[in-house]
Amino acid sequence: MKLLEDRIKKDGRLINSDILKVDSFLNHQIDVGLMDAMGEEFARCFSGLGVNKIVTIESSGIPLACAAARAMGGLPVVFAKKAVPNTMTEEFYSATVRSFTKNKVYEAIVSKRFLSEDDVCLIIDDFLASGEAAEGLVKIIEQAGARCAGVGAAIEKEFQGGSAKLRERGLKVVSLAVITSLADDRIQFKSTYEC
Amino acid sequence: MKLLEDRIKKDGRLINSDILKVDSFLNHQIDVGLMDAMGEEFARCFSGLGVNKIVTIESSGIPLACAAARAMGGLPVVFAKKAVPNTMTEEFYSATVRSFTKNKVYEAIVSKRFLSEDDVCLIIDDFLASGEAAEGLVKIIEQAGARCAGVGAAIEKEFQGGSAKLRERGLKVVSLAVITSLADDRIQFKSTYEC
Repeated sequence: MKLLEDRIKKDGRLINSDILKVDSFLNHQIDVGLMDAMGEEFARCFSGLGVNKIVTIESSGIPLACAAARAMGGLPVVFAKKAVPNTMTEEFYSATVRSFTKNKVYEAIVSKRFLSEDDVCLIIDDFLASGEAAEGLVKIIEQAGARCAGVGAAIEKEFQGGSAKLRERGLKVVSLAVITSLADDRIQFKSTYEC
Repeated sequence: MKLLEDRIKKDGRLINSDILKVDSFLNHQIDVGLMDAMGEEFARCFSGLGVNKIVTIESSGIPLACAAARAMGGLPVVFAKKAVPNTMTEEFYSATVRSFTKNKVYEAIVSKRFLSEDDVCLIIDDFLASGEAAEGLVKIIEQAGARCAGVGAAIEKEFQGGSAKLRERGLKVVSLAVITSLADDRIQFKSTYEC
């Protein structure tokens, strides 16, 4: 998606050959106009699959998930939590996830009230790197007996292998900007973007 | 705001006399249509104050902050983080906040790159209870030399005192549903809602 690639080129900052910082528009400060444009692109890419629920994980996935939900006609968004609040008095689904940027392991949890076997879920997140977060959400969706229609990410770091693992599970994966390398102080994009 | 009060009456669950659970539409599963309606109401209530930035705190404040930002013409949203990610390589503003629902203390942090003395900020959050989170954000905004134009919350638990403390600071506070009591298994709303 040209709009996103141009924004990454303009405002993205390379921390090292693994980490791209895009906190001025995606995951600390948020450009809601860009979120809406990306949400509409996800709606186009995942149309006709019967999706009735958007699933993401706190926190950075939430703005994009809400934009996709809005573009898909106002679908409900469910975001997995990384800690059990004292308002969670019922049973929940959970999966262990290792965070790439925070270098720790946590339990992603979703209340059993918000996923059922009738649901067709689309997972949305800001980044797709090693795929740990998305795989955790797939496990949670499977625990509920629901179906996962696919995974949509704003930025994929293809060289960290997450999309390949998810496609091996038979999932449709759409990343709006696919980065093949961050080595040598350069951001290299995959030349063709596939919806 | 009648739409929100009706939804609380329909889907809210009382956990005890302090805690109201609204996770089916506000802070675990999210109704984006309701978020948009609330965002438009905040835009109406805080118009003419020169607001150029929406400030919130992860995670539950993010959907509502984005909806308000959209309704106010696409303003940038900055959400404070509750942990320092390894992509945070620069200096940040911070304030200590005690979480009511998670019963713990954490540091709210915002990169110095996203707040400046030119900013007029509107704080948006899902709940206003004791006001700890909002006060932490006010402190962060003050550290940056920026101005806080006010605080908007979806649901206020007036009996926990947060709005009174914020108004003592001279801040405009707008809560779209003001609850005066959760005692005796009843949700009692303030009869007049003021913008």
